[in-house]
Amino acid sequence: MKKTFILIILLALAGGLMFCRQADKQDRRTYKLALTDQEVQDINSLVGKNELITRSYHNLMSESDQALSKGVEVPPPGESGGYEHEKHKQNYRDMKKTGIMFRLTGDEKYARFIKDMLDAYAEMYPKLGPHPLAHNQKPGKLFHQTLNETVWLLNTAQAYDAVYDWLSQEDRKNYEENIFNVMVRWFTEEYPHEFDRIHNHGMWMAASVGMIGYVMENQDWVDMALYGTKKDGSGGFLAQISQLFSPDGYYMEGAYYVRYALRPFLFFAEAIERNQPEIKIYQFKNQLVKKAFYSALQMTYPNGAFIPINDASRSMDINAPGMVYGTSLLYDRYGPDDNLLGIADIQNQVYLNGAGVKLANDYARKKVKRPTWESIEFTDGQDGKQGGFGLLRTGEGDDQTVLSMKYGVHGLGHGHFDKLHFMFWDQRREVIPDYGFVRWINIEPKFGGRYLPENNTWAKQTIAHNTVVVDQRSQNRGNRKVADKVHGKRFFFETDNPDLQVMSARADDHYPGVKMHRTLFLVRDEDMEYPFVIDIYRLESDEEHSYDYPLHYHGQIMASSFDYLSHDAMLKPLGNAFGYQHIWNEAEARPEASGWVSWLSGHRFYTWVFSGTPDSKFYFGRTAANDPNFNLRTEPLFVLRQTGQDHVFASVIEPHGYFSEAAEVSRNAYSTIRAIKVIGHNDTGTVIHILGDRDLEWLATVYNGENPDPQAEHSVRFRGETFNWTGNYSLSKIK
Amino acid sequence: MKKTFILIILLALAGGLMFCRQADKQDRRTYKLALTDQEVQDINSLVGKNELITRSYHNLMSESDQALSKGVEVPPPGESGGYEHEKHKQNYRDMKKTGIMFRLTGDEKYARFIKDMLDAYAEMYPKLGPHPLAHNQKPGKLFHQTLNETVWLLNTAQAYDAVYDWLSQEDRKNYEENIFNVMVRWFTEEYPHEFDRIHNHGMWMAASVGMIGYVMENQDWVDMALYGTKKDGSGGFLAQISQLFSPDGYYMEGAYYVRYALRPFLFFAEAIERNQPEIKIYQFKNQLVKKAFYSALQMTYPNGAFIPINDASRSMDINAPGMVYGTSLLYDRYGPDDNLLGIADIQNQVYLNGAGVKLANDYARKKVKRPTWESIEFTDGQDGKQGGFGLLRTGEGDDQTVLSMKYGVHGLGHGHFDKLHFMFWDQRREVIPDYGFVRWINIEPKFGGRYLPENNTWAKQTIAHNTVVVDQRSQNRGNRKVADKVHGKRFFFETDNPDLQVMSARADDHYPGVKMHRTLFLVRDEDMEYPFVIDIYRLESDEEHSYDYPLHYHGQIMASSFDYLSHDAMLKPLGNAFGYQHIWNEAEARPEASGWVSWLSGHRFYTWVFSGTPDSKFYFGRTAANDPNFNLRTEPLFVLRQTGQDHVFASVIEPHGYFSEAAEVSRNAYSTIRAIKVIGHNDTGTVIHILGDRDLEWLATVYNGENPDPQAEHSVRFRGETFNWTGNYSLSKIK
Repeated sequence: MKKTFILIILLALAGGLMFCRQADKQDRRTYKLALTDQEVQDINSLVGKNELITRSYHNLMSESDQALSKGVEVPPPGESGGYEHEKHKQNYRDMKKTGIMFRLTGDEKYARFIKDMLDAYAEMYPKLGPHPLAHNQKPGKLFHQTLNETVWLLNTAQAYDAVYDWLSQEDRKNYEENIFNVMVRWFTEEYPHEFDRIHNHGMWMAASVGMIGYVMENQDWVDMALYGTKKDGSGGFLAQISQLFSPDGYYMEGAYYVRYALRPFLFFAEAIERNQPEIKIYQFKNQLVKKAFYSALQMTYPNGAFIPINDASRSMDINAPGMVYGTSLLYDRYGPDDNLLGIADIQNQVYLNGAGVKLANDYARKKVKRPTWESIEFTDGQDGKQGGFGLLRTGEGDDQTVLSMKYGVHGLGHGHFDKLHFMFWDQRREVIPDYGFVRWINIEPKFGGRYLPENNTWAKQTIAHNTVVVDQRSQNRGNRKVADKVHGKRFFFETDNPDLQVMSARADDHYPGVKMHRTLFLVRDEDMEYPFVIDIYRLESDEEHSYDYPLHYHGQIMASSFDYLSHDAMLKPLGNAFGYQHIWNEAEARPEASGWVSWLSGHRFYTWVFSGTPDSKFYFGRTAANDPNFNLRTEPLFVLRQTGQDHVFASVIEPHGYFSEAAEVSRNAYSTIRAIKVIGHNDTGTVIHILGDRDLEWLATVYNGENPDPQAEHSVRFRGETFNWTGNYSLSKIK
Repeated sequence: MKKTFILIILLALAGGLMFCRQADKQDRRTYKLALTDQEVQDINSLVGKNELITRSYHNLMSESDQALSKGVEVPPPGESGGYEHEKHKQNYRDMKKTGIMFRLTGDEKYARFIKDMLDAYAEMYPKLGPHPLAHNQKPGKLFHQTLNETVWLLNTAQAYDAVYDWLSQEDRKNYEENIFNVMVRWFTEEYPHEFDRIHNHGMWMAASVGMIGYVMENQDWVDMALYGTKKDGSGGFLAQISQLFSPDGYYMEGAYYVRYALRPFLFFAEAIERNQPEIKIYQFKNQLVKKAFYSALQMTYPNGAFIPINDASRSMDINAPGMVYGTSLLYDRYGPDDNLLGIADIQNQVYLNGAGVKLANDYARKKVKRPTWESIEFTDGQDGKQGGFGLLRTGEGDDQTVLSMKYGVHGLGHGHFDKLHFMFWDQRREVIPDYGFVRWINIEPKFGGRYLPENNTWAKQTIAHNTVVVDQRSQNRGNRKVADKVHGKRFFFETDNPDLQVMSARADDHYPGVKMHRTLFLVRDEDMEYPFVIDIYRLESDEEHSYDYPLHYHGQIMASSFDYLSHDAMLKPLGNAFGYQHIWNEAEARPEASGWVSWLSGHRFYTWVFSGTPDSKFYFGRTAANDPNFNLRTEPLFVLRQTGQDHVFASVIEPHGYFSEAAEVSRNAYSTIRAIKVIGHNDTGTVIHILGDRDLEWLATVYNGENPDPQAEHSVRFRGETFNWTGNYSLSKIK
């Protein structure tokens, strides 16, 4: 694998022209994107005095100087994840950083670096055709997909603005003719559909064209960026953000993609505010910018990692560049917020502009605590009426317990077939996890870092999630077009009582003839060591079906209430399609009635207690069968299988005890709750009986009708006994 | 699982007797084990002034006060890992801590707590018979094995000494008659063989009897503790330490057990020094105490975790109680050492006595860095002539690279059949790991936290290690008695050149008719990103054998140089005995010649490049087949299989590149080294050719004769070419 490239070192070549390069004072124009003189002065006055500003400044200077020390290298285009691809990405990052450093220090070495880089691009770019390795993507010229090229432009536009005054007219003409005009034409004339498409790629494209439009004072480009190539509002930035985000600011593709979409969103919003304040972008659609950013922040776990729904990296977090920018920006544009200071504390930096100055000054003055978010429900769909995403939280700061459920729209090409999927975070880790995407991002030997086939065959399938699979087929049979037309339905979301928070949702259009209704309780109880979860999942059908309830976990099995048959001498997959082909069937059992299984994860034990019937089957599974290229991680799951028409899966997930191998300490390896029974269920309600150690007992109910009402009285009669309750659910402790 | 126990709360009952409890000043005797008045004064004067003393003091006070707040509870004996078992352990810890707090504060509430506790034990203990749940262990009375009971005594003796003066004569008589006499008789009369056995259990027993002997001024017990029950030196503490440790201080059971054995070792050594200084225990056997402690410290990875050879926890580290004590003690008894300050920095505490004061004062004055240990070889066996354990290190502090090889004795009942096994630490993690023990320590549902059957069937077997398996059978056929009679042999260990450190060892008595010789190079090279490993493993036999070279790893497979057949629709075990029954055969290949396979672990990629022949077979394996109770972790390994009489496995393990999923950055996913070939080998030497990207080439040689000599000239001729080198090995870069 030899890397061949043209190493272009132009450093110091430009020295001869230097004397005429500095524009006269009277030529200076307003900065469109770069730091104003006031911002430069404010930042410089804090360096060495303010902790966050000083660290951010020195990090940026160090990175800029490293870039300079390596010299300018503009290789021909290469493969995704390969050297050349990464180099072009590094180049736009370096240009952006050195642009800021040039503004902050006035040191011409930074400006020269940008000029040398742009000279090289201006030389090469006009000669490039479409990238040959597009692999079904819309090709850029520098990169295999236009997306990367728009990111290049959005960053380079900022660097170009920073040195605009310093450059000669001739330079500007060279770059504008040979780079920016060519690139913008490529986007707007070759790919108008991509430009106007409601999708994060479209947002990037619009924003990048708008940014360079502001710098070049090309209002035509800016108008296309704002209103679409037809300038009629059918595409463009304002349409993008209106349709990609729900009125609550929830982003249909999920948090992993929103942090990426937020970069053009926020940078362009700020550019609009600085150049066309009459648009009042920060007030647009009831402060949609604020809502979108806060919804992204609230879609995080206490460690700052984004909740990985849909195609998502499990380690992407609020340290992502757009998130650091947004934290500073929102703190300034929408006013102080202690949770933003807490976020900045995790990020350990600010963005170097006026907004960052404001945040850093308050950070230095105040006692900062890690952010504590409240329970919240996000509505989904551009009208906010297509289901949503619910988040129940309890505890404070790092030590929060988080229970989430997904019941919104499918989420376009990155969506998963996972309606009523839930995740559970406890003890600073995802205890009931989402698998995330199947992709080794940017790793060349793994298909250039792109999505792998198992992303479709495993990660998107219903069985890869914590939600019921009917007849061992994925929701909507794994057909995205069908799935995009339907959505989950919120039923109720009640979090007034901090000891008993409950959310309930339905999915009636994901399996023909089967209605699904899930209710999740997050309970704090003085007799229990940690908050625990009650899950009531009801299925209704006129036909006989097989229902699989999967529960994914991490860790080591400790014990179970039932015997099982271990397939420990030969493993076969649990099925042959819809993701089942990827699960090894490690063991199986017939628990016959309520049972439990416990595992160790980190310093805590967890027990899943489930209702059962005489025909219950239980499987111990593990990925990854039918994975010939070792693309999947090896992870365990349980599957509880029932057959029937109407059925209720009732479960408890209980964290308990403590284990430290280093300290050789273990306590409470057995759970408190030991059995759970479905007393009955009908169109009015479901009644559940929970039994624990020390004679503990609870009754849980949930309302199954229409029109949820916290004041309504309900009554059901099962097995000769009458159960009454008020509201949409109840949980009462019998002993 | 209801827990039934007698809750004895005696707090405040003793109030009436208080006036006569304080002994007259003239009655006061010298403390035998507890803090002297000078130590008390020194510590108290530093609280609030010195960081380590203050933290240690407040931690101890907080733990002591928590113990008091829970009251005194002495339940009947229970099962290992169960509530009662843990409570008795907590009780001796609490007594010891409150004893120190009583000395430091003089507050009688701490003394009363100890008195109430001892009252309860004195009431119960004489009535107890042997523990009913011994499971093949020597039963104690409070605990299922005498080992725990000796730990109880060693700690309680210290608490008893702390309150001795404060107690009434009547109390002392009560405890001595009803607890200590009974317990010591149980040890010395029922289990003289256990007492005198050379084993860590024997050391605990001797030390605990010696400690209470000093407190009760019972020189008979002390003499038994020092010289064995027969007082002839055939057993007892001095024999124990002479025989359990090599002259270098290396402990044959490995580091996990040494940190446990060091507790009685160090506490009793200090007790001897304070009570019988004429023994000169700290000078005994050429400062064996010092060597033993330092060897334990050096058997750690840069994060402080012990290298997990033999039966061992992978997370036990230098924060273990005995290690904190030893760090303070050795700093005082053998003089200042910056590495001990570095260890105290990881521990973040000192032991509260005069030694801790000395260390804490220096810690406050000096700039402390994390410890950096040098490469070192430990000889094994009580004569130091039974092989050893080699450790090659490069880098500094946290960022050290560590390569280790085990070539000593078997190591008694906790030994593994793993001679010539190697481990590789890089990037703050064990990259080529040891599995450790199969045990979920102290977890009740996992067989009470004891060793599980898979410890024998997997963890001890040769295939569970990184060393060659002959004919798919473990060394010495897995027979401990046979293995205890043989040992590995050191060949050479040369670390003068920091860029090229090499160790070489042999094991000729572990497979009948097969001689094995392994040489490991740790190389730093300016053309390579990180230090890398060269492994030359030579086998000689007159008979045809099958040779399996296993390599255990953690992480995700990225790529391989060869195609393979994936058994991805059905898995079967790789064999049916000697650990092979626990390995699923995930895929297999015929690499035909030199090949490589790469994986991702953490933020780095690793590539194993291996020599091959036309009959090479390659297996991708993963635990855990035939593990019906989910006792094993699921972990991957590779196996390279050859058949032949004489054979050389030549390999390189190369760390390379960088990956961050959160930052979405990946570089150098492919290794630099791509092929390795055995040019030839005979009784004089082995010659290896290593080929890399960018036309890199190396020649490596190793001397195969007897009498290693760094100055000797060697010459071999293979394939018509002559190779000359000086010394035991060479590595030369051709390009």
